[in-house]
Amino acid sequence: PPGDPTTSPGGGGVLGLLRRLGRLEDSRQRAAELFRWLVAPVALEEFARQHWERAPLLVQRGDAGYYAGLFSTADFDAILRSGDVHFGTHLDVTSYAEGVRETHNPVGRALPAVVWDFYQNGCSLRLLSPQAFSTTVWHFLSILQEHFGSMAGANTYLTPPGTQGFAPHYDDIEAFVLQLEGKKHWRVYSPRTCSEALSQFSSANLTQAELGEPLLEVVLEAGDLLYFPRGFIHQADCLPDAHSLHITVSSYQRNSWGDFLEKLLPAALQMALEEDLEYRQGLPIDCLGYMGVANSDAVDARRTAFVEKVQHLIKKLVDYAPIDAAMDQRAKSFLHDCLPPVLTESEKQLSVYGFPARWQDGGPCNVDILITKDTEVRLLHHGIVRLCNEEAGVMLYYTTENSRVYHKEEPKYLEIDPEYTDSIEFLLSSYPNHVSVDTLPCDALEDKISLATLLFEKGILTTKKPLVQV
Amino acid sequence: PPGDPTTSPGGGGVLGLLRRLGRLEDSRQRAAELFRWLVAPVALEEFARQHWERAPLLVQRGDAGYYAGLFSTADFDAILRSGDVHFGTHLDVTSYAEGVRETHNPVGRALPAVVWDFYQNGCSLRLLSPQAFSTTVWHFLSILQEHFGSMAGANTYLTPPGTQGFAPHYDDIEAFVLQLEGKKHWRVYSPRTCSEALSQFSSANLTQAELGEPLLEVVLEAGDLLYFPRGFIHQADCLPDAHSLHITVSSYQRNSWGDFLEKLLPAALQMALEEDLEYRQGLPIDCLGYMGVANSDAVDARRTAFVEKVQHLIKKLVDYAPIDAAMDQRAKSFLHDCLPPVLTESEKQLSVYGFPARWQDGGPCNVDILITKDTEVRLLHHGIVRLCNEEAGVMLYYTTENSRVYHKEEPKYLEIDPEYTDSIEFLLSSYPNHVSVDTLPCDALEDKISLATLLFEKGILTTKKPLVQV
Amino acid sequence: PPGDPTTSPGGGGVLGLLRRLGRLEDSRQRAAELFRWLVAPVALEEFARQHWERAPLLVQRGDAGYYAGLFSTADFDAILRSGDVHFGTHLDVTSYAEGVRETHNPVGRALPAVVWDFYQNGCSLRLLSPQAFSTTVWHFLSILQEHFGSMAGANTYLTPPGTQGFAPHYDDIEAFVLQLEGKKHWRVYSPRTCSEALSQFSSANLTQAELGEPLLEVVLEAGDLLYFPRGFIHQADCLPDAHSLHITVSSYQRNSWGDFLEKLLPAALQMALEEDLEYRQGLPIDCLGYMGVANSDAVDARRTAFVEKVQHLIKKLVDYAPIDAAMDQRAKSFLHDCLPPVLTESEKQLSVYGFPARWQDGGPCNVDILITKDTEVRLLHHGIVRLCNEEAGVMLYYTTENSRVYHKEEPKYLEIDPEYTDSIEFLLSSYPNHVSVDTLPCDALEDKISLATLLFEKGILTTKKPLVQV
Amino acid sequence: PPGDPTTSPGGGGVLGLLRRLGRLEDSRQRAAELFRWLVAPVALEEFARQHWERAPLLVQRGDAGYYAGLFSTADFDAILRSGDVHFGTHLDVTSYAEGVRETHNPVGRALPAVVWDFYQNGCSLRLLSPQAFSTTVWHFLSILQEHFGSMAGANTYLTPPGTQGFAPHYDDIEAFVLQLEGKKHWRVYSPRTCSEALSQFSSANLTQAELGEPLLEVVLEAGDLLYFPRGFIHQADCLPDAHSLHITVSSYQRNSWGDFLEKLLPAALQMALEEDLEYRQGLPIDCLGYMGVANSDAVDARRTAFVEKVQHLIKKLVDYAPIDAAMDQRAKSFLHDCLPPVLTESEKQLSVYGFPARWQDGGPCNVDILITKDTEVRLLHHGIVRLCNEEAGVMLYYTTENSRVYHKEEPKYLEIDPEYTDSIEFLLSSYPNHVSVDTLPCDALEDKISLATLLFEKGILTTKKPLVQV
Repeated sequence: PPGDPTTSPGGGGVLGLLRRLGRLEDSRQRAAELFRWLVAPVALEEFARQHWERAPLLVQRGDAGYYAGLFSTADFDAILRSGDVHFGTHLDVTSYAEGVRETHNPVGRALPAVVWDFYQNGCSLRLLSPQAFSTTVWHFLSILQEHFGSMAGANTYLTPPGTQGFAPHYDDIEAFVLQLEGKKHWRVYSPRTCSEALSQFSSANLTQAELGEPLLEVVLEAGDLLYFPRGFIHQADCLPDAHSLHITVSSYQRNSWGDFLEKLLPAALQMALEEDLEYRQGLPIDCLGYMGVANSDAVDARRTAFVEKVQHLIKKLVDYAPIDAAMDQRAKSFLHDCLPPVLTESEKQLSVYGFPARWQDGGPCNVDILITKDTEVRLLHHGIVRLCNEEAGVMLYYTTENSRVYHKEEPKYLEIDPEYTDSIEFLLSSYPNHVSVDTLPCDALEDKISLATLLFEKGILTTKKPLVQV
Repeated sequence: PPGDPTTSPGGGGVLGLLRRLGRLEDSRQRAAELFRWLVAPVALEEFARQHWERAPLLVQRGDAGYYAGLFSTADFDAILRSGDVHFGTHLDVTSYAEGVRETHNPVGRALPAVVWDFYQNGCSLRLLSPQAFSTTVWHFLSILQEHFGSMAGANTYLTPPGTQGFAPHYDDIEAFVLQLEGKKHWRVYSPRTCSEALSQFSSANLTQAELGEPLLEVVLEAGDLLYFPRGFIHQADCLPDAHSLHITVSSYQRNSWGDFLEKLLPAALQMALEEDLEYRQGLPIDCLGYMGVANSDAVDARRTAFVEKVQHLIKKLVDYAPIDAAMDQRAKSFLHDCLPPVLTESEKQLSVYGFPARWQDGGPCNVDILITKDTEVRLLHHGIVRLCNEEAGVMLYYTTENSRVYHKEEPKYLEIDPEYTDSIEFLLSSYPNHVSVDTLPCDALEDKISLATLLFEKGILTTKKPLVQV
Repeated sequence: PPGDPTTSPGGGGVLGLLRRLGRLEDSRQRAAELFRWLVAPVALEEFARQHWERAPLLVQRGDAGYYAGLFSTADFDAILRSGDVHFGTHLDVTSYAEGVRETHNPVGRALPAVVWDFYQNGCSLRLLSPQAFSTTVWHFLSILQEHFGSMAGANTYLTPPGTQGFAPHYDDIEAFVLQLEGKKHWRVYSPRTCSEALSQFSSANLTQAELGEPLLEVVLEAGDLLYFPRGFIHQADCLPDAHSLHITVSSYQRNSWGDFLEKLLPAALQMALEEDLEYRQGLPIDCLGYMGVANSDAVDARRTAFVEKVQHLIKKLVDYAPIDAAMDQRAKSFLHDCLPPVLTESEKQLSVYGFPARWQDGGPCNVDILITKDTEVRLLHHGIVRLCNEEAGVMLYYTTENSRVYHKEEPKYLEIDPEYTDSIEFLLSSYPNHVSVDTLPCDALEDKISLATLLFEKGILTTKKPLVQV
Repeated sequence: PPGDPTTSPGGGGVLGLLRRLGRLEDSRQRAAELFRWLVAPVALEEFARQHWERAPLLVQRGDAGYYAGLFSTADFDAILRSGDVHFGTHLDVTSYAEGVRETHNPVGRALPAVVWDFYQNGCSLRLLSPQAFSTTVWHFLSILQEHFGSMAGANTYLTPPGTQGFAPHYDDIEAFVLQLEGKKHWRVYSPRTCSEALSQFSSANLTQAELGEPLLEVVLEAGDLLYFPRGFIHQADCLPDAHSLHITVSSYQRNSWGDFLEKLLPAALQMALEEDLEYRQGLPIDCLGYMGVANSDAVDARRTAFVEKVQHLIKKLVDYAPIDAAMDQRAKSFLHDCLPPVLTESEKQLSVYGFPARWQDGGPCNVDILITKDTEVRLLHHGIVRLCNEEAGVMLYYTTENSRVYHKEEPKYLEIDPEYTDSIEFLLSSYPNHVSVDTLPCDALEDKISLATLLFEKGILTTKKPLVQV
């Protein structure tokens, strides 16, 4: 339909998709559309209701070009040629034959001659975090992460015909398998026990004898999608006549209610101890005598009272749980995990990254960042900042200075004068609309300009029009 | 009354008390009687109801010899003479004058000539943990700790006439001040705020300006007792004409319901994550957008649902909370804090500590520990052992090899074959009665004897009759 | 003269120089020629005799294009634009005015708009290790390091007209200042004391009052060279009408006889202790009584004997000093400091880095590295490997997998079967000539091919002809 | 002869010896006499010339009471009874049978019943550092350490009849075996190679097959002495009809010329680098090319020059070697190793340890340390202090606050105003004579008294007459 960003002109494949997404104003909308495209033609509501964390989804599109431009073996070859890939750190050479799973990583740099020799001898090649090498994968994941609100990672897998590279196993992440080239025979199995469903941890390598009948068995072809939740066992092997290249996009690692409670409960107890005398009262003076596993079968009114008191105090923790503050801490941690944003060409023109300051004719020119009360500004993207109230002050965490390499940089933040908090929140709530600097809720115009300039210099704010006409 | 151990013959003061307590069979009863004597003539029920963790208690006995034998300045002088006391580690030299609190510790050994010179110049002398130097204090506290089920510590304070050694402050422990010699003028103040009541932490030094009117003001004399709960501010100074020596017995540091929950909650969450899928389910995919302090005033059905879900999960933790196991862990930690037991002369004759094995006439004699099926045994004291189920196995923690110096030894334990668990519990439940080795619920007689011998060798078991007649 | 690589065709400036050097077969010759060019027209012998570690050298060439292509402010601007430059880590913003030296580094990424704003406000910009950003600087230093046999580092300094960026000070390295753009007024002062000459350590910032008269005062112009040894105090400021850009090339940090002895002496003593009983004999039983500073003025035959014995043992260490092994350890440490080699286009064609293995038409092609007995090979460069005998075995250290970022990679080495040692030495001594694999002094042909293949795969060996014709 | 302290009245055995030594004024003389007694009737000169570090010495005295009072199995039994002995830390239970050496240490406290049971089953009992438990051994070693100028340690060994507790081995210390009770069959073997002679390290357990013929084979009886140097292999077993108890006194661990050079050489090089330009000059620019193991056979004038330069610089280090300062550092380290001094009863009366300050009748009495200009003072013993010039200042290290447990206390020192240095040296050189405080070479009387008082308070000085008549 006209106006549908995912099908309107701009070319096919992922490059076309990214171009179309770039025309959307709101980064949250971009993220949602990218995800819609990822699971299409399955509707988002259906995916959420029937598949997410519940059951595998298979989409056979019969459109070999659906993912065109995202990643190819030719890209992989070019990346090897750069000389920046190291065995073990970035690339794993693996095999799985006759029930034996092996890793064959040499030490040092992974050069094409050596890597392709392994491949020719039947080894699979797993490139870890291709987003560090491929700008397109980086761009793709940096949009998707805003949809999940949780780190989006990836690996690519290149497998020679007639081989299998990994033993059956399950992972601790939601997995989206995008078949990029060739074909691969997949088998997916339901979690074996209730406690393996949505598992917090990846499994060890499993044997075929430990598996039952697959829930789903299929040959994926280029353009197809296979999704399965954490805890679902899976294995995949190549047909004799075709190699396979796929990328697995992952998210929702350690992002459960329990993980949230792990941060929340100590904070809640801390608050309760400070505010509520009942938590500071001493234990009954003789409780060591009637509590403990050795006494657990005893019928004793003191035991009952003790247990009821503990239960009462646990339930009352609800009153002290700083849920919103804990969510800000989760957001802070997510922002550290995030890929830095990829700017479209037009975003770049409006940001400090495209600012024309440069050395010319023996001196710097176009240096001044002339933000005035009338300059219209907005956040570059919605998900790139988070305000956190911490003991040391109000901190604005941001992602624009993150590295494409996971956690290579420390968390980045600006300490914010508490009186600027409202302005930050105003910018967040106004997004994706621009606001003039004058409307920021600071007291003095000087403060408004100073705040906007600081955020512009960090790449957090963009302007409606280029600050300098060049 | 006849049979009352605290008043029956045996002499007065603490030495008499300890002798009388030594005649009681059950260590729990000894502990209870010692505490009854400590607060007498106030009844235990009254103390528990009106004072414990609630309000100061003053007992003016008019009996200067009540604590006789516990600790004296002459004892302190003798301890200094041993050469084992070091400034800072064992002894603090302090002063408080005109609002200034100072510590005057030199480095090195605290010899009488130097220490008494400080005293003569108006300094107070605080001996830390006198139980490491005085066997009577050790004996006293080792009984008392079983009453509290929480470490019982002590300091002594010697103050010159007309001086004060410490600034007003509050502590994080329940304090029992036993006036041993001379007199001291005390002022106790109610906690200033609700959050200081039963405080988890000691205060900094306070100024007189920060205090209100004292709740209680009194001159303590030898034989008197002053109790006050943690969080109650206090200060004390000597009258111009008399020095003061008192011992402060403390307990219940970090022993509150909240401290218990601090250990319990992570274990409960761990159990819930393993057993209950609901805790492993992912957070709502967009929750970063509507949760967080910046959104806390928003009216949003998603917020309500999120908060209710968190509350539901907190409350459900009650179902997974391993209360008894957490209590065993607390007990394990308490046993590490414990002073080792002090044996009466008759207990010693029945224990490995009095076993007559010795070198004589060029060879060892009386070496064999001949425990048979008919040997009658029991635990030395009730509170000296605890069984804990741990990942690595069933462990029997015990105090008999602890040091008089706090945590100088690592926690001591024996790994117990799980099939011996019942025998340990049988020994605990039979206490203070003796049982014949034959009645231990192990399968083989050999096992019964081997277990009893092991426990006897560690000083944990005593026999009804000396194993060797000498 | 014909055949002079530094003046023969190939273009002017540094790019022309590097092209001409690339035509020389021997990397040691390249290094020597580059250094000759650096100090030209001063002869090498004159430089060595009169300047190196002795006195400053000023070369005013009147040839503004002499260094063309090495580094420019335009290059610097482009590097900033890459977004990879971080304040503090890579770039320092400094000022020195009215005797006050300040650093103005913000946190985070150094973007052009912000950096040029500092410059416009009078700050100097020091780019640390430009070789990590500029391939030409990397190439230049990677050749030069082989001349020095000691790490060659660099910084660039961009200074606004009329300002000074640094306080007077001296450094711990030999400094070669290459004026790239504009002009700068320099003052160089002799070391103030004998102990500051050839100083092991850099000085703190000095005040003008601490300086005497300059030994040398000059305005450097583009194309000029200023050299001064470590320990020579210096300062430089811009004239009111011209900015300045220079690069300081440094070497010989901690590379003195004393530094060498620091490694050698413990090894020598270790050997002496193992092999010579005299070192293991006990000290005289009463020497604490007559030796020591308190006895240093005493006339005592025992003192004389003791001192003579120590002197005898120190002198005898000469017999045990493993000088060659210590030099190999120094070489190993230098190889870790080294920049990785830059390959000329033709070197690349003959090395694994240009090997044509690649993914094509759905599979890998040209994968096999077919080294045969007739393949003619040589080391890529002479200075890229070093054999070291270590306790764990014979190790071949190499630089080809180093990073352009100092010590980002661990030292790289291959453990070498001791029977291959002769082959490695043969390759070193044959360099720059090629040898056929057959002539390697290994026993079996299989071993010869396997060793050559291993070294080829690591980029250490090149072949005379491309292994695959493409 | 009359006046000979080792034979004059006072009783026999070690207790008599210690009493006689206590009558000698000079601690150095006590040390020498004790050592003379130890090797008697062999003369000191003969021992030094023929045995020390050269060859075993066997003294068969036929006097079973020679060592009476030093240590007995009854003492050992009493020490076990104290409850302070822990397996592993203080006591090892060992066996050696049919070539197998085993350690049987349980965990925890070593109580008599368990220890004697091991003994009865054929195990040897090695008590580590008996000086921590036995005052006589402490007294004995504390005198002997001053003779050696090197830590004197000890172990005792109790062995059942007909058994051997340890495998053949050699140690890294000079060993004096004093047979205390029973008999033991010893075999001592010469070092097998030159490099094992005076070994720096103890050997592993050796097998009988690794040994040759013993150099010495003897049955030691009570009162006998066996000495052998480090590096001499030895083994000992009991005859079928007698147990054995001996104490091995050890010294001169890591106390060789080489150990001294290990401290001296870095300090010498540091001085040379600071004072002598030649050490700061750079290495020849091309030395990596002609030095190194691969070049070691080459004939090359540059190699010769390099080696000669290194040898020249090593030899010249002699001029910079701070021999006396290094000896002070060794002394400092020895003082940390030292046992604290044991005071005779009369020494105690004259020292702070016998100072009569005490608590009496409700207050301190005899507190003032009234040192005046006429008080005559001297050091307690000669070897208890050492002055060291350090960067942080002049430090007076002392042993009086050391612990009987090795390195339980940190090194003890007083920072000394440099102007007091002469007074300390005056006290050292005057020893064993007393000097009046007035004669101390300080400027002001106040300083003299203050210094003397400080040293008296630390137990370093004693007075000629008791300061207080009581």
